[in-house]
Amino acid sequence: MKAEIIAVGTEILTGQIVNTNAQFLSEKFAENGIDVYFQTAVGDNEERLLSVLSIAKQRSDIVVLCGGLGPTEDDLTKQVLAKFLEKPLIVDQEAMTKLDAFFATRPTASRTANNDRQAQIILGAKAIKNPTGLAVGSMIEVDKTTYVVLPGPPSELKPMVTQFLLPLLKNEAILYSRVLRFFGIGESRLVTELSDIIANQTDPTVAPYAKIGEVTLRLSTKAKTEEEANKKLDKLEHEILNTSTLKNYHYGYGDDNSLAEVVFEMLRQKKKTITAAESLTAGLFQSQIADFPGSSSVFKGGFVTYSLEEKSRMLGISLEDLKDNGVVSAFTAEKMAEQSRRLTDSDFGVSLTGVAGPETLEGQPVGTVYIGLATEDAVFSQKIMIGGRSRSDIRHIATMYSFNILRQALLKL
Amino acid sequence: MKAEIIAVGTEILTGQIVNTNAQFLSEKFAENGIDVYFQTAVGDNEERLLSVLSIAKQRSDIVVLCGGLGPTEDDLTKQVLAKFLEKPLIVDQEAMTKLDAFFATRPTASRTANNDRQAQIILGAKAIKNPTGLAVGSMIEVDKTTYVVLPGPPSELKPMVTQFLLPLLKNEAILYSRVLRFFGIGESRLVTELSDIIANQTDPTVAPYAKIGEVTLRLSTKAKTEEEANKKLDKLEHEILNTSTLKNYHYGYGDDNSLAEVVFEMLRQKKKTITAAESLTAGLFQSQIADFPGSSSVFKGGFVTYSLEEKSRMLGISLEDLKDNGVVSAFTAEKMAEQSRRLTDSDFGVSLTGVAGPETLEGQPVGTVYIGLATEDAVFSQKIMIGGRSRSDIRHIATMYSFNILRQALLKL
Repeated sequence: MKAEIIAVGTEILTGQIVNTNAQFLSEKFAENGIDVYFQTAVGDNEERLLSVLSIAKQRSDIVVLCGGLGPTEDDLTKQVLAKFLEKPLIVDQEAMTKLDAFFATRPTASRTANNDRQAQIILGAKAIKNPTGLAVGSMIEVDKTTYVVLPGPPSELKPMVTQFLLPLLKNEAILYSRVLRFFGIGESRLVTELSDIIANQTDPTVAPYAKIGEVTLRLSTKAKTEEEANKKLDKLEHEILNTSTLKNYHYGYGDDNSLAEVVFEMLRQKKKTITAAESLTAGLFQSQIADFPGSSSVFKGGFVTYSLEEKSRMLGISLEDLKDNGVVSAFTAEKMAEQSRRLTDSDFGVSLTGVAGPETLEGQPVGTVYIGLATEDAVFSQKIMIGGRSRSDIRHIATMYSFNILRQALLKL
Repeated sequence: MKAEIIAVGTEILTGQIVNTNAQFLSEKFAENGIDVYFQTAVGDNEERLLSVLSIAKQRSDIVVLCGGLGPTEDDLTKQVLAKFLEKPLIVDQEAMTKLDAFFATRPTASRTANNDRQAQIILGAKAIKNPTGLAVGSMIEVDKTTYVVLPGPPSELKPMVTQFLLPLLKNEAILYSRVLRFFGIGESRLVTELSDIIANQTDPTVAPYAKIGEVTLRLSTKAKTEEEANKKLDKLEHEILNTSTLKNYHYGYGDDNSLAEVVFEMLRQKKKTITAAESLTAGLFQSQIADFPGSSSVFKGGFVTYSLEEKSRMLGISLEDLKDNGVVSAFTAEKMAEQSRRLTDSDFGVSLTGVAGPETLEGQPVGTVYIGLATEDAVFSQKIMIGGRSRSDIRHIATMYSFNILRQALLKL
């Protein structure tokens, strides 16, 4: 089943709104084994919408139209589809009853003839109820193509899709997927290591995706049951992580996961506390840890030591030593980590000091970062180079590195 | 000029990512007098991309392709466009030099043959520099249609569009717009205050837009010169700010501006320094100040005091007083601001303490926040309530409030 999503609305083409309906529908369709091959956006214009429908009819089995079901003159989706299919519009009685009930409590003048259009469907179509709005949706099959009409507001479209449309469209075999997350390896190297697997992929499929500072791999397979899917996904995951060096870079699973969240959960499970002394990141590490409910059990507080003087004053590091070694140095990173840990009685102290740019610092290039980690028994630091990035990216990627160093230390406990 | 935006990437069609590039390009094109008539998304698939190109060629003057310029096998946008236009790919020397420089500091093994594809452009195309990445963009006119190729990551695409593509495409009568930014007023109240102006808008037009914690108003007009546009925009802006209470909430201009940036610039111009003691925001305030180049002239460092004990220990506030007054209190906010200022010898000390949720704290509801501000002469605090928001939103909106309080104090200097 090849699906196409057509968003109708001039506000999309002028960039006033982001077409999140396309993303939502695509995600839900993928989860239910329906492949979306095209997304299209077109304005509230009869001629262009007709042309888009002609194209869609030729290449897709399911055509979902979203938007343009409102009560104003420029809402014309249903009217144009009716014209395209050469069928009349009729009133859906349930939707009209709802409309009547809605306007019963309002001044008579507020109801216009246009409002009644919201209760119309194409003759022969199946109505799709709208639990949170007045515009009824619908679905009709003509010449082996299924056309679906949905309203544009996400608050109306989403419940209609999950409660009514998906059960109507459900396929036998469903797409299951699993996302593996990697840090510390670039997309091109990851793809090179997996080149055989990627070249030979059939089922499950493997799709790499690069984000700022990290790479994800989505493994997908169609199966009748979750158990059947998991068997196939487990096998491929094992192959990926064990026939390459990728295991060293793999830190977690899922679409919305992050290194910060993985580390937070490890700290919580192991009942360890963390603090930080941050220079170039100036609070990014700490603010991320505190974003999770329950963070007070692992984090009591920490330091933002931006200047050389504050590194000395807040953390009690000798000013001379700092000047002798430089603020961008292993010495300073280690002292910062050690002192922050000591001053807050935490189990771990993390530190970040480096050059966010745009200027070099102490003769060191932009992107040079030292990350320190102190525990009760030891303190060490690691130098990383983040090349060719903006100030903001350097600060974010450095923070990710610090979470990863902490993760590796926690794994050894 | 009719433009069409084609996003290439299977991750869009599976709903993994939202196609924000289409929105960004549409908005920028609208501002520059170029009408976008269609947006399309298609997967990393040669056959389907070729079919989409055939359709676009027939109906559009400008075809912008975004995504699929990376170093992996499934990145095929340029290759398919070259095939479609029946032209070879050649190496752009400037992009290759950049690639060489990038890999010069990395292990030899990390460079693969695929990386070199990122420096290719179609024979006869004009290269579009990528200041924040390795994949070069390009633009070529064939048979009266202009094809533009851009990388998918928004951090690369955006600067390429604003710095290089738009100047290349500029139209005669250009849409000029001005964005006014407001903090502390909701969208519905703003729209109510401006109802007459909005109802009667013709030229310039007025479009409100709500973001997390703030509202923007975009004033737009088409004009031959910037001077002509500014005259019209000045008049409308004056009317908006002076026939309503909106002046009190107006803090700045521009699409990418922020309260943090406005405050940073004020601090820098007035040669004032700032510090902070943050509880629920845990470094968000400080990390935002440090995001601007040159921040070391206004910010030396500060404190993240998440627990009651660290508020006492780091800031030297009596533990008993904290317990007596509660951590979510005017007393604590003021002490935190005062002590952070004193301990770092800064001109201003800002503090944030409150309930991010999901649990209440000291019997105070989620969203209760006290913000303190200390100067050499005075210290005060303000209580705000951020209702019905997520933990993450509460922390971000609280940070915005603190920047706004600081802005108001700086305005009085």
